[in-house]
Amino acid sequence: MARVNEEFLNLKNDYLFSKIIEKTNEYKAKNTGIEVKSLGIGDVTLPLVKPVIEAMHKAVDEMSKKETFRGYGLVQGYDFLIEKIIKTEYEKIGVTLDHDEVFIAAGTKGDLAGMVELLSINNTVGLMDPVYPAYRDMNIMMGRDKIVYLKGTEENGFIPELPKEHVDIIYLCSPNNPTGIALNREQLTKWVNYARENHSIIFYDSVYEAFITNENMPHSIYEIEGAKEVAVEFRSYSKIAGFTGVRCSYTVVPKTLNAYTKDNEKISINSLWRRGQSTKFGAASYIVQRAAEAIYTEEGQKEIKENINYYKENAKYIKEELEKAGFKVYGGEDSPYIWLKVPDDMKSWEFFDKLLNEVAVVGTPGVGFGEQGEGFFRLTAFSSKEDTEIAVSRIVKLFK
Amino acid sequence: MARVNEEFLNLKNDYLFSKIIEKTNEYKAKNTGIEVKSLGIGDVTLPLVKPVIEAMHKAVDEMSKKETFRGYGLVQGYDFLIEKIIKTEYEKIGVTLDHDEVFIAAGTKGDLAGMVELLSINNTVGLMDPVYPAYRDMNIMMGRDKIVYLKGTEENGFIPELPKEHVDIIYLCSPNNPTGIALNREQLTKWVNYARENHSIIFYDSVYEAFITNENMPHSIYEIEGAKEVAVEFRSYSKIAGFTGVRCSYTVVPKTLNAYTKDNEKISINSLWRRGQSTKFGAASYIVQRAAEAIYTEEGQKEIKENINYYKENAKYIKEELEKAGFKVYGGEDSPYIWLKVPDDMKSWEFFDKLLNEVAVVGTPGVGFGEQGEGFFRLTAFSSKEDTEIAVSRIVKLFK
Repeated sequence: MARVNEEFLNLKNDYLFSKIIEKTNEYKAKNTGIEVKSLGIGDVTLPLVKPVIEAMHKAVDEMSKKETFRGYGLVQGYDFLIEKIIKTEYEKIGVTLDHDEVFIAAGTKGDLAGMVELLSINNTVGLMDPVYPAYRDMNIMMGRDKIVYLKGTEENGFIPELPKEHVDIIYLCSPNNPTGIALNREQLTKWVNYARENHSIIFYDSVYEAFITNENMPHSIYEIEGAKEVAVEFRSYSKIAGFTGVRCSYTVVPKTLNAYTKDNEKISINSLWRRGQSTKFGAASYIVQRAAEAIYTEEGQKEIKENINYYKENAKYIKEELEKAGFKVYGGEDSPYIWLKVPDDMKSWEFFDKLLNEVAVVGTPGVGFGEQGEGFFRLTAFSSKEDTEIAVSRIVKLFK
Repeated sequence: MARVNEEFLNLKNDYLFSKIIEKTNEYKAKNTGIEVKSLGIGDVTLPLVKPVIEAMHKAVDEMSKKETFRGYGLVQGYDFLIEKIIKTEYEKIGVTLDHDEVFIAAGTKGDLAGMVELLSINNTVGLMDPVYPAYRDMNIMMGRDKIVYLKGTEENGFIPELPKEHVDIIYLCSPNNPTGIALNREQLTKWVNYARENHSIIFYDSVYEAFITNENMPHSIYEIEGAKEVAVEFRSYSKIAGFTGVRCSYTVVPKTLNAYTKDNEKISINSLWRRGQSTKFGAASYIVQRAAEAIYTEEGQKEIKENINYYKENAKYIKEELEKAGFKVYGGEDSPYIWLKVPDDMKSWEFFDKLLNEVAVVGTPGVGFGEQGEGFFRLTAFSSKEDTEIAVSRIVKLFK
């Protein structure tokens, strides 16, 4: 008799974003005349930049001819892309990486989930709260139940303290989804030192690093001394280059990073990851890797920066207008996310329902990101300028 | 202290195909004047067909304009593709599926690995031997060590008997990689009945179904009565449409398929899979899904069939020429794989080294697919006609 993995049953059935979509669709069905404006799910709206489009056309044409057709690529990804990442993303900030330390994938989620499996379920996990809910779910699905929540509150400026309990695996998301707050150099150094002293591993999710404005915020954890001994870094093209429908990401796994057996033998995470990926993953699409490569041309860099600035302008607008209207608002400076304190002691979902039903605006209930998110609400800067302005003015009017 | 998942350490470091590449590269470095011909790794060589190329160009153009740009798609995949799969792949063979039973992915490996995790590690797994080695590795990585090998030998025509021990999860690969042998209707019915009686689950890997020639071979396990209660079916565009570098696949998870808790409560695999995928997987690329859709046009179907026939001609040629030369050869009729009995009591890797070093031909040692593969060798039909002929004539000459 085939037995189910009962750990999966500990997951809540209502994945945050699915529930939002469902509620929104219900509303739309009942109110066909009203246009819903969404500052909800973190999806981009600007089209791909020209160099990316051209690179994909070229790659598609290569696939049409026998001489230039490409079948299976190396599971790790193509050298042409890895090289550009090392040079453009890391060398400029003083970080040196070897080719075999960068792994191309088809999205960060899959790599986050794969990384969870490399480590024993007996590890204690430190999870920011609030944070992207998939981290927690991935651990629960594996049966890892020793979770310490690293609380981000108004009092600590959403920067969690080092935990009193010992943690073996630490998830840091900076700039944070949903609070929009990034860790500065000093704060991040504390965590790296903690991990070095405790032989812990940091999973550093920096998929929003391109939105960083403030100069004292590191873009990569490897800017901190010693981080290569303790951290895996996750990066994605989804938000910075509008690849949410294209699918490309990469993960840095330094060769100096180890985990330990029960007998305290050092095991290289890099070689374990390589071996696991050969078994479970079939490489990212050639065309998509060429698309990613194109953002590293001069024109590509210029155009994606223009797009990021467009979204940053939206973030600034949302933040300023809501502040003017008397809301308490966090984030939005180093991040496309605005973290709004829900007024009038409402709960997050109450606020969601109120906005949807009274002014047809969709956002994301903070409580979906963890207990500490209760009473907060996430707005994103990824809509068009026009829709952002309409949505904000509707919210402001509602609370006048 | 971050502890490693020690199950991963039970994997052999030399993943079969990596070892072949390594040995081949070594030989090439030492013998720069000699052209190596490979009938080894199962990668395609014909370029993508015209309707696929056109569909990708069109999709890329859509991504360049705000009005037609697509961001995140549903994790399950786009309806336009699911609809075509249901209609073209299944309706024609009398199988009815609902939209929410088909899941699009970026390659079968990832889905095979994901499916392994849904079920308890305490299940006993029945694994064909020889078979695609990733199945075993995925189970080992999870710590599932109760494995019953379903032996395929010359004596049983490479069709394993039902096991004497009880098995909860059964991997069937048909047409089989590497033996090239497909299960016929009667044989497959036995397995479906076994699974129904024992509440077991069958993972049916039919990624090579398009190569089936014989009429009594089912293309889908759902052609067998009751299979929807017991089987997940894995399909891929990799070999049938040359998508090894494009990356698209699908998995059928019927809503009537259940696993059981310790208290014998029925759990729907379909809803568990949907929930797990939302957490761990970020959907397949839009452009790639449009590419897959294009094979279901009239022209697309015609052209991919021509390509499949090209490879089938290669398979026939390899089989016939080697038989003429006195080799014992299996497979090659319903499959792109030829399963060669190694002559002169050589071991698989000895034969590999002999072919590589003496006539610069690469194939795949049978023992890499399991113990029962020792003394066998896999040749594939995916090279060009010209290279296939050269490789075969080199092998034949060597053993004259």
